Amino acid sequence: MARATTARTATARATATTRPARARAGARPSPGELKRTVVIEDVQPCVDGGRWPVKRVVGDVLEVTADIFKEGHDVLVAFLKHRRADDGEWRETPMRLVDNDRWAGSFLLEDNARYRYTIEALLDPFQSWLADLVKRVDAGQDVASELLEGLALVRAAARRARGEDAAALREYAARIAEAPGEAAAVSAAREAGLAALMRRHLDRREATWAEPELEVVVDRERARFAAWYEFFPRSGVAGRHGTFEDAEAQLERAAAMGFDVVYLPPIHPIGRSHRKGRNNTLTAGPGDPGSPWAIGGPEGGHDAVHPELGTLADFERFVARAHDLGLEVALDFAIQCSPDHPYVREHPEWFFHRPDGTIKYAENPPKKYQDIYPVNFYGDDPWPLWLEMKRVVEFWVDRGVRTFRVDNPHTKPVRFWAWLIREVQARRPDVIFLSEAFTRPKMMKILAKVGFTQSYTYFTWRNEKTEIQQYLEEITTPPVAEYFRGNLWPNTPDILHETLQRGGPPAFKMRLALAATASSLYGIYSGYELCENVPVREGAEEYLDSEKYELKARDWGAPGNLVGYVTRINAIRRAHPALHHSRNLTFHRAEDPFILWYSKATEAGDDVVFVAVNLDVTATRACLVDVPLAALGLPPDRPYGMHEQLSDTTWEWRGPRGYVELDPRRDPVQIFVLRRP
Amino acid sequence: MARATTARTATARATATTRPARARAGARPSPGELKRTVVIEDVQPCVDGGRWPVKRVVGDVLEVTADIFKEGHDVLVAFLKHRRADDGEWRETPMRLVDNDRWAGSFLLEDNARYRYTIEALLDPFQSWLADLVKRVDAGQDVASELLEGLALVRAAARRARGEDAAALREYAARIAEAPGEAAAVSAAREAGLAALMRRHLDRREATWAEPELEVVVDRERARFAAWYEFFPRSGVAGRHGTFEDAEAQLERAAAMGFDVVYLPPIHPIGRSHRKGRNNTLTAGPGDPGSPWAIGGPEGGHDAVHPELGTLADFERFVARAHDLGLEVALDFAIQCSPDHPYVREHPEWFFHRPDGTIKYAENPPKKYQDIYPVNFYGDDPWPLWLEMKRVVEFWVDRGVRTFRVDNPHTKPVRFWAWLIREVQARRPDVIFLSEAFTRPKMMKILAKVGFTQSYTYFTWRNEKTEIQQYLEEITTPPVAEYFRGNLWPNTPDILHETLQRGGPPAFKMRLALAATASSLYGIYSGYELCENVPVREGAEEYLDSEKYELKARDWGAPGNLVGYVTRINAIRRAHPALHHSRNLTFHRAEDPFILWYSKATEAGDDVVFVAVNLDVTATRACLVDVPLAALGLPPDRPYGMHEQLSDTTWEWRGPRGYVELDPRRDPVQIFVLRRP
Repeated sequence: MARATTARTATARATATTRPARARAGARPSPGELKRTVVIEDVQPCVDGGRWPVKRVVGDVLEVTADIFKEGHDVLVAFLKHRRADDGEWRETPMRLVDNDRWAGSFLLEDNARYRYTIEALLDPFQSWLADLVKRVDAGQDVASELLEGLALVRAAARRARGEDAAALREYAARIAEAPGEAAAVSAAREAGLAALMRRHLDRREATWAEPELEVVVDRERARFAAWYEFFPRSGVAGRHGTFEDAEAQLERAAAMGFDVVYLPPIHPIGRSHRKGRNNTLTAGPGDPGSPWAIGGPEGGHDAVHPELGTLADFERFVARAHDLGLEVALDFAIQCSPDHPYVREHPEWFFHRPDGTIKYAENPPKKYQDIYPVNFYGDDPWPLWLEMKRVVEFWVDRGVRTFRVDNPHTKPVRFWAWLIREVQARRPDVIFLSEAFTRPKMMKILAKVGFTQSYTYFTWRNEKTEIQQYLEEITTPPVAEYFRGNLWPNTPDILHETLQRGGPPAFKMRLALAATASSLYGIYSGYELCENVPVREGAEEYLDSEKYELKARDWGAPGNLVGYVTRINAIRRAHPALHHSRNLTFHRAEDPFILWYSKATEAGDDVVFVAVNLDVTATRACLVDVPLAALGLPPDRPYGMHEQLSDTTWEWRGPRGYVELDPRRDPVQIFVLRRP
Repeated sequence: MARATTARTATARATATTRPARARAGARPSPGELKRTVVIEDVQPCVDGGRWPVKRVVGDVLEVTADIFKEGHDVLVAFLKHRRADDGEWRETPMRLVDNDRWAGSFLLEDNARYRYTIEALLDPFQSWLADLVKRVDAGQDVASELLEGLALVRAAARRARGEDAAALREYAARIAEAPGEAAAVSAAREAGLAALMRRHLDRREATWAEPELEVVVDRERARFAAWYEFFPRSGVAGRHGTFEDAEAQLERAAAMGFDVVYLPPIHPIGRSHRKGRNNTLTAGPGDPGSPWAIGGPEGGHDAVHPELGTLADFERFVARAHDLGLEVALDFAIQCSPDHPYVREHPEWFFHRPDGTIKYAENPPKKYQDIYPVNFYGDDPWPLWLEMKRVVEFWVDRGVRTFRVDNPHTKPVRFWAWLIREVQARRPDVIFLSEAFTRPKMMKILAKVGFTQSYTYFTWRNEKTEIQQYLEEITTPPVAEYFRGNLWPNTPDILHETLQRGGPPAFKMRLALAATASSLYGIYSGYELCENVPVREGAEEYLDSEKYELKARDWGAPGNLVGYVTRINAIRRAHPALHHSRNLTFHRAEDPFILWYSKATEAGDDVVFVAVNLDVTATRACLVDVPLAALGLPPDRPYGMHEQLSDTTWEWRGPRGYVELDPRRDPVQIFVLRRP
């Protein structure tokens, strides 16, 4: 597992090696081809045999392992090769034999780019010869003939080398050839300097290259570590439609709470035809703003700004203001149109038609969604539609947007996303795509495999100890963690889970702190910090008076608000590098069936955070919990400190078990930072 | 898991579908390509992402599963496609949705050939339309427009169809179009006959094909089920070198004992230079026959017969005689030469040379093997050597040999074997190759992956309960069992394990019955049935007076021989189809740490064999053993019979536990056939 590290241990060195061309089918194989006999198998990391890239972030060291072997007993040498996918030059780092034909190597992922990697392995004739020579000498055998063989190897290397190395190799050859006796010649042949020179000037012509080449998408760090905050920029001002300028206050609030990304529902003109009213009613009143997901009106479509929010220039100022506050603006990308969208006139062929020629609105029979026209990816020629979608994304990229939350990607062709994301990232590798698919598991996963940087998850619906642990383990360990980055949301404008409806503030604290510590990526939809928990009706997950259909002005300082709690949790996250990762999540045993107990540590072990979560928000729970002393390098008999962050209290623990007690009315979650003795 | 079955449930149907051509890189994608949007992932069985073929035998039904899904809610249809690799026509069988986007299908492997298989999946527009139509009708909606859409689908299908089907589709279209009302039209649209016609005439142009295509090597049944018997044809006649004619007596013995394959060490002329004497001494006496693995003399090389054995015609008569006895002759293929081999003169470039031009003998420094010249696969051009090796194999294939036991394949390039086996089997798919590699695990496995039909195993060195169980489970379950067929040998001319040296006849019975029942493939080297157990020296695994270096005439009727036991075990194997497989091996709990307890069942469950093995050959062991009643479909409360085959005694058991008692002096192994109540 590769994690970010500042140690630049793996230094890549440019070499002139190029991959040998492959023979044409049916042609007489070349001698060189027949001699490329090293077996290179099971190169890891690798998603589905190399079908899809693995994911990492800038600064990670990619650890690569493989089975590398060959017939017989010759000494092998192997190099991990890598290059940026947009650049032809292979760089290489040496690999080392670990055990049982398994080799390992690594390289630093320096750039926000797509890399390719593979392995080049070959026989090392000099080392093979030297190993045999030593055995013969140790057995007292005559080695005159063997020395001549070695000499030939050194001279051949001298011919391949240039400059100083060539001279040094010629010098070694001369010393071996002119040695006063076999012992002196053997001694020269065994010098480390010669071995290094010979390793540097291997004849690579018969090297074997692993196939297929594998890919790693190297994202910027925000792809792995970020706290998201979703809000409707139109809300926030009592009595009228808010503008981008008004929404700067919300940016300030988000920044003050310690969020990294603010995500806005669609900011485009909203359709009027069949506009939905409050609480998703079929008829809108004259003042109803409509759902921002009904995209497109006379004022424009996906590349326009809703006039009541302001102008495109206002949006650009808003993005700049966010940037000044250390925030990034994420836009919603929802491929669907209101009946008033310009595409309906300009590209009727991008929609579904009835036999009478009219355009079909969305349906899930017998349900009808007349305010939305779904886009048809199966028209006579989908290519112009694909290009237009790419143009829309790049339009916003060109206006400073680097993150897109993609609405319902599982309702559009998977291969379209594969193409779109690759195309956009080829030009702008810093663009992040979050998949908003809440659907069957294999669709969730393939969307991540084909390119989505992050993914919404089933977290919201995992509320019991075993199911939380199993699910988080699944998404934070390989194979899933190689391509899937879960972004955990305790709520969204569409999802107010029963746990929050019933559990009140303790549940809001618990689910927030759980999401924020178990995952390096999490987010909340605004109103969470006010513990808004009234559903539209009993048994529903939608909010009453949903902000999707009306303007909302909230009193952020209302009594009982969690602003301080959220701010503290985000501060703890930022302060602790262990919480910047998800693949380091490790669950430990807690005896109580309602207490979750897990830890995260940096690779170097210099930051270790333990978290205890009381899932029962109705009662104080307490139990013994395990501490993996050996894994942490803690002595069994000396006390260590556990500094609880929310209460700022340090407990002294000793031995492999500790005790936690969690009163949900006070702190349903405790976050301990280990203080080594 | 596919096992042989006589039920021809999966009938393949020829269709005219052809795989769509792939677009050139960089070209504007065709509309059809953009619409090939079905996701087909994780097609199983599959070795290493499709790098290597899976293995089956003729008559097996290949069960194929895959994740198949698409965006949205449309109805999908999927076909399992297969064709012989040497034949361009795809055949197909329908697949069915199992659960959670996992689909399954199967086809019968009718021929001893290499097949390719893949999956074609597409949207089923008619079924999708029909499902929506039914929902609308049930909700009382008007469906006039929808009926027109369905009519268009039926008419398009009618245009694709020919003959009767076209007429029938036109008839349905007319009935829908001219129906007296919506209800009648809907009723016609819902008829099963129309659905079947529509399924038969899908528009396949936008279907998605899974990539990569996968391969299955379908061997003849002997590849999976055979008892092997190894003997030296030169032995057997007291006082002189035996001939092929003499060796017919040994064929008769092998046939009488119930073996299927007789394997002969190399039958070629034996070198004289540095010939090894008795017990592997460096100097041969004048009468010493030498090791048959020192191949080649003045009389010829790999395509010649050792004159003392007879002529090529004698060999062909021997093969024919074996065939008459129901036996198959397996030859040894050892790529190495004595200094007297014709290749040394004719192709000195196929050997390793010292700087003075002399040819190198084999060495493992400081050890020297002067009677053997290793072959050099890294000369200036290895291609003529590769072709010659293929010629040698095909020379013997043309003389009736269909099975080769390949000596030390792990000392020649893996890719050479991949090529050789594929080439030979392309012409003669019935040729079987057994890999005699006793080396590191990954080399053992890659040799099986690249083509070896069967493999020697570590069985000989697995003697304790846990290690036997773990090892046999590893090689008889996926992923290993998809490509690796273990052939278990209790002894070979090189390996007399300590267990046999110390355990005497009980150990010989135990290891034989264990190998013969746990694996559908096993073999012994002659002398085993006489319990020959004297090593060349304490601590060694080689035999004293090894037959590799001298002629041996044995008294096959000597007191204490196991001929009857071996015969009985082979008869039980043949009589019970459950023992013709290895992938059905299942271990169950036995309370005694020295008792192994396992079962095998046919897929239909009509033959179930349980085996109890006492690994402690010094003491009687007894314990309770588990019987998986539910898995066997046995009622918990009724008695069932356990018919022990060696003692011909039937025990009545009841409930999920039985009792076994094994006296190694009598029967260290008991073989029970289940008799259902």
